[in-house]
Amino acid sequence: MPDNMLDRINSPDDMKQLNRKEIKLLCEEIRTELIETVAKNGGHLASNLGVVELTVAIHKAFDSPKDKIVFDVGHQCYTHKILTGRREAFKTLRTEGGLAGFPRPSESVHDSFVAGHSSTSISAGFGISQAKQIKKEEGYVIIVIGDGALTGGLAYEALNNAGRTQDKIIVILNDNKMSISQNVGAMAKYLARIRSKPTYYKFKSTVERGIRHIPFIGKKLRDMIFFSKSILKNAIYHSTIFEDMGFSYLGPVDGHDINTLLSVLDIAKRQERPVLLHVDTIKGKGYSFAEENPKDFHGVNGFDIQTGDYFSSVNSFSYIFGDYLCEMAKRDDRICAITAAMKSSTGLKKFSMDYPSRFFDVGIAEQHAVTFAGGLAISGLVPFFAVYSSFLQRSYDQLIHDIAIQNLKCVIGIDRAGLVGEDGETHQGLFDVAFLNSIPNISVYSPCTYDELMYDIKAAIYKDSGPVAIRYPRGSQPCLPKDYTSYDLPYIVYGDETAKITIVTYGRLFSSAVKAMKRLEEQNITVNILKLNKIKPVDQDAVNQILSSSHIFFFEEGMAIGGVSEHFTALLAQKRYKGAVSITAVDNIFVPQATVERSLELLGLDAAGMTKKILEETSLEEQSKA
Amino acid sequence: MPDNMLDRINSPDDMKQLNRKEIKLLCEEIRTELIETVAKNGGHLASNLGVVELTVAIHKAFDSPKDKIVFDVGHQCYTHKILTGRREAFKTLRTEGGLAGFPRPSESVHDSFVAGHSSTSISAGFGISQAKQIKKEEGYVIIVIGDGALTGGLAYEALNNAGRTQDKIIVILNDNKMSISQNVGAMAKYLARIRSKPTYYKFKSTVERGIRHIPFIGKKLRDMIFFSKSILKNAIYHSTIFEDMGFSYLGPVDGHDINTLLSVLDIAKRQERPVLLHVDTIKGKGYSFAEENPKDFHGVNGFDIQTGDYFSSVNSFSYIFGDYLCEMAKRDDRICAITAAMKSSTGLKKFSMDYPSRFFDVGIAEQHAVTFAGGLAISGLVPFFAVYSSFLQRSYDQLIHDIAIQNLKCVIGIDRAGLVGEDGETHQGLFDVAFLNSIPNISVYSPCTYDELMYDIKAAIYKDSGPVAIRYPRGSQPCLPKDYTSYDLPYIVYGDETAKITIVTYGRLFSSAVKAMKRLEEQNITVNILKLNKIKPVDQDAVNQILSSSHIFFFEEGMAIGGVSEHFTALLAQKRYKGAVSITAVDNIFVPQATVERSLELLGLDAAGMTKKILEETSLEEQSKA
Repeated sequence: MPDNMLDRINSPDDMKQLNRKEIKLLCEEIRTELIETVAKNGGHLASNLGVVELTVAIHKAFDSPKDKIVFDVGHQCYTHKILTGRREAFKTLRTEGGLAGFPRPSESVHDSFVAGHSSTSISAGFGISQAKQIKKEEGYVIIVIGDGALTGGLAYEALNNAGRTQDKIIVILNDNKMSISQNVGAMAKYLARIRSKPTYYKFKSTVERGIRHIPFIGKKLRDMIFFSKSILKNAIYHSTIFEDMGFSYLGPVDGHDINTLLSVLDIAKRQERPVLLHVDTIKGKGYSFAEENPKDFHGVNGFDIQTGDYFSSVNSFSYIFGDYLCEMAKRDDRICAITAAMKSSTGLKKFSMDYPSRFFDVGIAEQHAVTFAGGLAISGLVPFFAVYSSFLQRSYDQLIHDIAIQNLKCVIGIDRAGLVGEDGETHQGLFDVAFLNSIPNISVYSPCTYDELMYDIKAAIYKDSGPVAIRYPRGSQPCLPKDYTSYDLPYIVYGDETAKITIVTYGRLFSSAVKAMKRLEEQNITVNILKLNKIKPVDQDAVNQILSSSHIFFFEEGMAIGGVSEHFTALLAQKRYKGAVSITAVDNIFVPQATVERSLELLGLDAAGMTKKILEETSLEEQSKA
Repeated sequence: MPDNMLDRINSPDDMKQLNRKEIKLLCEEIRTELIETVAKNGGHLASNLGVVELTVAIHKAFDSPKDKIVFDVGHQCYTHKILTGRREAFKTLRTEGGLAGFPRPSESVHDSFVAGHSSTSISAGFGISQAKQIKKEEGYVIIVIGDGALTGGLAYEALNNAGRTQDKIIVILNDNKMSISQNVGAMAKYLARIRSKPTYYKFKSTVERGIRHIPFIGKKLRDMIFFSKSILKNAIYHSTIFEDMGFSYLGPVDGHDINTLLSVLDIAKRQERPVLLHVDTIKGKGYSFAEENPKDFHGVNGFDIQTGDYFSSVNSFSYIFGDYLCEMAKRDDRICAITAAMKSSTGLKKFSMDYPSRFFDVGIAEQHAVTFAGGLAISGLVPFFAVYSSFLQRSYDQLIHDIAIQNLKCVIGIDRAGLVGEDGETHQGLFDVAFLNSIPNISVYSPCTYDELMYDIKAAIYKDSGPVAIRYPRGSQPCLPKDYTSYDLPYIVYGDETAKITIVTYGRLFSSAVKAMKRLEEQNITVNILKLNKIKPVDQDAVNQILSSSHIFFFEEGMAIGGVSEHFTALLAQKRYKGAVSITAVDNIFVPQATVERSLELLGLDAAGMTKKILEETSLEEQSKA
């Protein structure tokens, strides 16, 4: 026997041979691996520590990839990655070219579906299961979903659709009593009620043990008693929502007890219909700092294993947003704040404590958050919904239908707008400008500094008449020249107003543009910068201001199609602008994981890229004239 | 007493005085009014006929606008409009400048929230209710939601959020056993189970009658018995999902019995917490043709009252889509079809009968429809999701996250793309091009003819490698010149290739463009038309083709910002195009209700508007040269 259990696991098959003692050792080694890698690379720690035994049990009980395992959000897939031939690669987690922090089918046949956003697993898994029926393929679909993800409407839509079938799907509810921070809402209360009852399952296994020993008849009798919708069962254990929705309900069981897990998975396999298996886990299990503080160890940028110290950014756009909102709320009692289960990460913790009656955590429910905000706004309040850019994608229809059509004064604080770095494709905030641009009535700001963020918040409350979105990047304000002053203006021209070459940009890219401007100056090329603050509607004066430029360079940290650059260019064209135009933005691709700095470099959006682009194009221009 | 009850009702207050006999008369008159107006103007008949008594009872029991009534979807708000001072205006329903077919706060203080899309009411109503708390205002919030709308995840998100409070919101579940066509899924099954049980409510009212007569103590005792979470209650009536979600459950009650409704609303009012009142109604009630055929009388374009004959368009894009899909499915067993509760209206009825195992009605659940399609696609099938453009807005995140990132071959059949006419702002299909444009990997087609639609379907299956959207308008193919041949090409140039003036357009506007071309010819102005079929990605050859035009006119039946015109213009500008550009599209407004023809005229997108625009701009051009 090698020193290390993990050395023996190159595929899920290798696990089938392990005995219970070896499995225990294996789980310990996985935990060490998880802690060490996340401490270095950052990632989702607490949720992954909570599902070590569960994932091991699933791979022991089922045959991936014949059986398909679908992880919701993917905050829980690290153990799965380690067990499916990616142990060596695991140290590259979340780095450029390395393993994704989320399931990725292109990485392994054992990853069934991409999942960076919440609540998608039952829909995807049910699709995979129906495809199995159509193609007459054998196998189970196992879906692992957290209690937080269950607050998303998409999960419910899928339960409703799957519950009327006889598909062999096993939905494993990983109930760690948390979504990202504490789970809220009626469903969370309900799950707590189930957990607190003398459990059906526990009762059952006791009786079961007795019955099992009756030869031949034992197994059948057991199933008959416990899986029929019998009066006995209803009397013992109150029917659950999941049973009402057409699922067999099993649980709750201890998610850290391998033996229990294996035995209940065995029962689940023998149902000829959808099963919901309720598993009770501890977020952060096995690492004391994470167990005590699961919220803070949900997503981390790296930490010190011995002390549990992690990097906490006091000064960030999120923090300034929340802090200034408190200040505004003190003076103006119409101001409310809404989060979709991201209170701390969107900077709203202080607001929730200072103004509890005006603070709403609605669960992982971005659609509802926006329509609910509409209800507050139509009643004369001023709701702020703070949300990550990529999650706001889920509110697109609500922004149009429930907010913009009625021109309601709701403010969306779009956090993590632009590149987000290590979380990769699924989390990039590169679409919001494009999808907001086409919606009438909405104003959009893209501040570059904390001061501008504060100006924009104030303008949203007291100046703009309809809905407003304010988008700001992950992290802190970029490095800017000492002489730069933030203005409460839709746009400014920075640098020599008479320059013939103009850079148009907004948000944090202004910092790179200033650097590029200086580098070009050194080469005797004079450029100025049209820095937009209010990016929608585009100020007509801003367009007029640069009509006489000979070359306009747009740099945009977002999708090219539908972005500010294309719209601005169309405005220029309709005003018969005759100079050259060059647009650098995200050109119809999904941007993979890498640090933000590296991604900017790859996209040509850092100072070097801007400088290079301008040098190239202007010398081309010279050549064509010569 | 006037001949007519309705003549006495100018506001909800006027109803408070009516006795039960008068109310009965009133309901009859309302039904006549509904049938007569919808027969003429078109609209939602069956659902409105089902809630006449319910709406009357609500207005008798509550005080609007102090109490806020929120209608879901608004398919059920006609009686409400008639009773709230809009009886005269009702004949203008769904006409230009007339009453909206949906609730519209700008129309009346009695309309609480715009609602053209499904499942928004609980979110909006809960927002209004929380605002009442914050502002310390009195009053109830009454929410009327259909059983179909309850399949939408947004409704569940809102129940989850509201269920943990003590708000005085009364959710009235208008259970007509239908969404638009027959309701499907586990929730529908569950509601049927509740309805079929010896009802708690019926039992209760019998006992209640006995208790009521005990003086003083009667009322209190009644409430104590029936609204505590008592063992007795649970024994009599199994706890419902709604109770598990934190709501008091009342019902089911007969939704056409005014006395029962008034008494149960009275009970609901006295709860100091959220109530779900389950009301059993008959869709189409009181008009035999609609009762027998509620599906066909859900949304109609007008009909003959005596015979029940209504206009049915055999040849429409929807029909061709469904028909051709059946043909493809016959040869290719990977092809599946998905609808979100719109089987007939999206042309999928035949498919559902011919290929039941490959057909999926997922309920009003557009998010799930797309992620579920992703599950099918990743398993090697080719799912087609047919959906109205404005409802696809709800799948925006799923298109990005679950389909496009994985580059899965799903095909979206976008029905009702472009202007839809009388349904107005909430239903216009004007956003899809803009929101799809920014998503990498997705190809978008916009056929103008049935033949092109079929070519595009074939290309989507056998030529394009990733996800594809095919968008087509409501109704039938437009009038085209006899010599026009449909091509299986990304674009064509129609007319004189050497013309210096070019119209760029796509979809049904090509028909107007051809007419405009002819009118201009008569004035000796030669133009050609660049007709796009594949609008994303824009073919670079198409751009090169018109670089030598002196003036390019874009006409687009969609939002200007983020649309094809702006993107195309940006491509031209980056290729140093030096001519003039003019874009006519929907310029940052929501387009109100009117016929499609009239809307096109108002937007300058009909032949006359195109001709005028080109004449104006080219003569301006001439002047500036002169």
